[in-house]
Amino acid sequence: MTSSISPDLSAYCLDLARRARAASRLLACVSGKHKNDALLRAAEELEARAAEVVAANEKDLAAAAEFALSAAQIDRLRLTPQRLHDAITGIREVVALPDPIGQVRASSVRPNGLEVYKVGVPLGVLLFIYESRPNVTIDAAALSIKSGNAIILRGGREALHTNRAVHAILRHALHLAKLPEDAVQLVETSDRAAVGQLLKMNDLIDLVIPRGGEELIRRVAAEARMPVLKHYKGICHVFVEKSADLDRAERIVLNAKCQRPGVCNAMECLLVEEAIAEAFLPRAAAALRRRGVELRGCPQTCRLVPEAIPARAEDFDTEFLDLVLSIKVVTDLDAAIAHINQHGSGHTDAIVTNDLSAARRFTAAVDSAAVMVNASTRFHDGQELGLGAEIGISTDKFHARGPCGLLELTSYKYIVYGEGHVRGE
Amino acid sequence: MTSSISPDLSAYCLDLARRARAASRLLACVSGKHKNDALLRAAEELEARAAEVVAANEKDLAAAAEFALSAAQIDRLRLTPQRLHDAITGIREVVALPDPIGQVRASSVRPNGLEVYKVGVPLGVLLFIYESRPNVTIDAAALSIKSGNAIILRGGREALHTNRAVHAILRHALHLAKLPEDAVQLVETSDRAAVGQLLKMNDLIDLVIPRGGEELIRRVAAEARMPVLKHYKGICHVFVEKSADLDRAERIVLNAKCQRPGVCNAMECLLVEEAIAEAFLPRAAAALRRRGVELRGCPQTCRLVPEAIPARAEDFDTEFLDLVLSIKVVTDLDAAIAHINQHGSGHTDAIVTNDLSAARRFTAAVDSAAVMVNASTRFHDGQELGLGAEIGISTDKFHARGPCGLLELTSYKYIVYGEGHVRGE
Repeated sequence: MTSSISPDLSAYCLDLARRARAASRLLACVSGKHKNDALLRAAEELEARAAEVVAANEKDLAAAAEFALSAAQIDRLRLTPQRLHDAITGIREVVALPDPIGQVRASSVRPNGLEVYKVGVPLGVLLFIYESRPNVTIDAAALSIKSGNAIILRGGREALHTNRAVHAILRHALHLAKLPEDAVQLVETSDRAAVGQLLKMNDLIDLVIPRGGEELIRRVAAEARMPVLKHYKGICHVFVEKSADLDRAERIVLNAKCQRPGVCNAMECLLVEEAIAEAFLPRAAAALRRRGVELRGCPQTCRLVPEAIPARAEDFDTEFLDLVLSIKVVTDLDAAIAHINQHGSGHTDAIVTNDLSAARRFTAAVDSAAVMVNASTRFHDGQELGLGAEIGISTDKFHARGPCGLLELTSYKYIVYGEGHVRGE
Repeated sequence: MTSSISPDLSAYCLDLARRARAASRLLACVSGKHKNDALLRAAEELEARAAEVVAANEKDLAAAAEFALSAAQIDRLRLTPQRLHDAITGIREVVALPDPIGQVRASSVRPNGLEVYKVGVPLGVLLFIYESRPNVTIDAAALSIKSGNAIILRGGREALHTNRAVHAILRHALHLAKLPEDAVQLVETSDRAAVGQLLKMNDLIDLVIPRGGEELIRRVAAEARMPVLKHYKGICHVFVEKSADLDRAERIVLNAKCQRPGVCNAMECLLVEEAIAEAFLPRAAAALRRRGVELRGCPQTCRLVPEAIPARAEDFDTEFLDLVLSIKVVTDLDAAIAHINQHGSGHTDAIVTNDLSAARRFTAAVDSAAVMVNASTRFHDGQELGLGAEIGISTDKFHARGPCGLLELTSYKYIVYGEGHVRGE
């Protein structure tokens, strides 16, 4: 990625990052009302100039053939008036969220009278690398401004016209609100070496957030010299424990697999406790088959469910993102926990049970960002968990785990008030 | 570092990390009382076998010549009965701290009735790389066990006998308390390639904490594939604003510079607002000179303070860790903030002022882990700020900033309780 960098490209990236850093210093000290004013301006400007944005998107769509996009990718690239409207509504929802900056998260008065406050502050400069969907440009910029961070946006080449149009409007809104325009930067070159350059600038960029395929994320994680907020795959499980209400279990299994199979919090593997496998698996399998789900089972599953095909070992380590499900019968709760901790991706795992100690043991021992009891895995999402808009779901444990909303885009500092205090001499 | 790795060394490191991972799974589900029992056992065993530890330390001291240690390094290596006693007292202080694991940090009931709990969990496996002082082995193991993490300790080669003796006792205490002995691992080979091997194992190790010189930290940060909790240098400032009480300012300046000049939260640079430079600098300089401090001033300082020698540009970017101070006269508050954000290390900076808006502007705009108002920089420390024992002070903004105690060694998960909830179809 960094084989032949032109001096121009280096200078371009450095200038971009420096201007973002300078803007971030100003934005860090701005009131919540001032940031909200800018966001409301952005919503109004995007509404007033919607035709301009849609026209730019038409240009990208017309050029889509150049990038050999699939039909699904073209659909994601399309910014219809409705999708733009939804993104603008999203800005207004971000405005309504509480400001995480300046918020006192902990405080104490020490025995010597020192007053200690732990106070929310922005991270500084974010680098956001993403693919296709240009409405994400609007979501990311709104979360970034509200959390007091400057952001450098690196969208897909195939969306450059749309992103340019959106970016110009966002900058104009910042200008109207008397905030630094440089707080939202767009990498306008389609030279892929630009990303490699930016990933080295750990003095100017505080966090990189890659959102896209696993390969993109791995490449960014390998090259970045600053922290990376990663959103890896979701190999999510539902475990039906022997005390489970079987109607409830069937409803949850169907929802977790079928309601939206292409997303990261959909179930990929069903685990069933041996003691109820005979009672549960045939009926669940029939319901799943009616919804068009392909079933890949362990030998015990295949004996109980004639429609299942034998699972290969790798089926238990695969994120299908499709109407495909692996199924395994496990001897007991501990076997289910061990399977999940070995084969899962630490994203979302659920137990269906009516046994309190089983629920408590499962939630304590399963090492995942979200653990559900008698609820569908599909609820693991910033809005559903009450955090508001999110920029991704972290499967890391460091800094942020699970949905990454405003709070997860911040850090804190200690502010200490004394009256001339000195330390014991 | 990774030029010629023997297969034996690879297997050794892999085995160590795997056993730590397995132990961490068990430790994550243990009650606070059970962990405290193990720590109290460790304190008792270390007390009972103190002579054994001190004898091992004598062996290290006898071999110190082999490692060409300086007198200061030999002093740090020495584990006197008093220092061992202090470390054991430290274990009992950690026992007294609240357990961060299982603690509900936020909760909500969603409109659909889902109950959402954000609950503290361990990070998993820590790798701690440190130099010389063997009492740190005890501190780190105590913090790690209490926070539910397994730890891999990599101390200096010069302290290996002491660390082996301490490690054997800690393992025995875990055994007595019926906790997994593998929760505390010691890298016993002195082969430096072992560190390079461990830093690649991001599937088995969740966090690396290097504590030592800047070079060690940079090397670890460059090689590690897992997150790094960094404790870089402290270039700390005191800014005396024009409204400051000058007696108070002098007291804080003397304390910040002289009370313990060799530590990271000591002041390295004094900034004085122009309007009071003539009134403050000569008296402050005289007091500092009486305490043996060498003064390196900007041209304006040198005009006001004949004892000052002219500062070179690099003096304003240097952590002296000694009785040396750089001094600069600045035109106003904003110039002080700009100087600190450019030349500081984001560790600790203080303002002495009696002006409320100056205090508020300084604390908001200075981008450092701790910002003090009318208090010495020396208060930036886990005990002084009320967090209890610490494993270091982070100058990063990601995950943890400032003192890293128990809470900073943890992550969280979302536990969600439903009653058969499925997401809208």
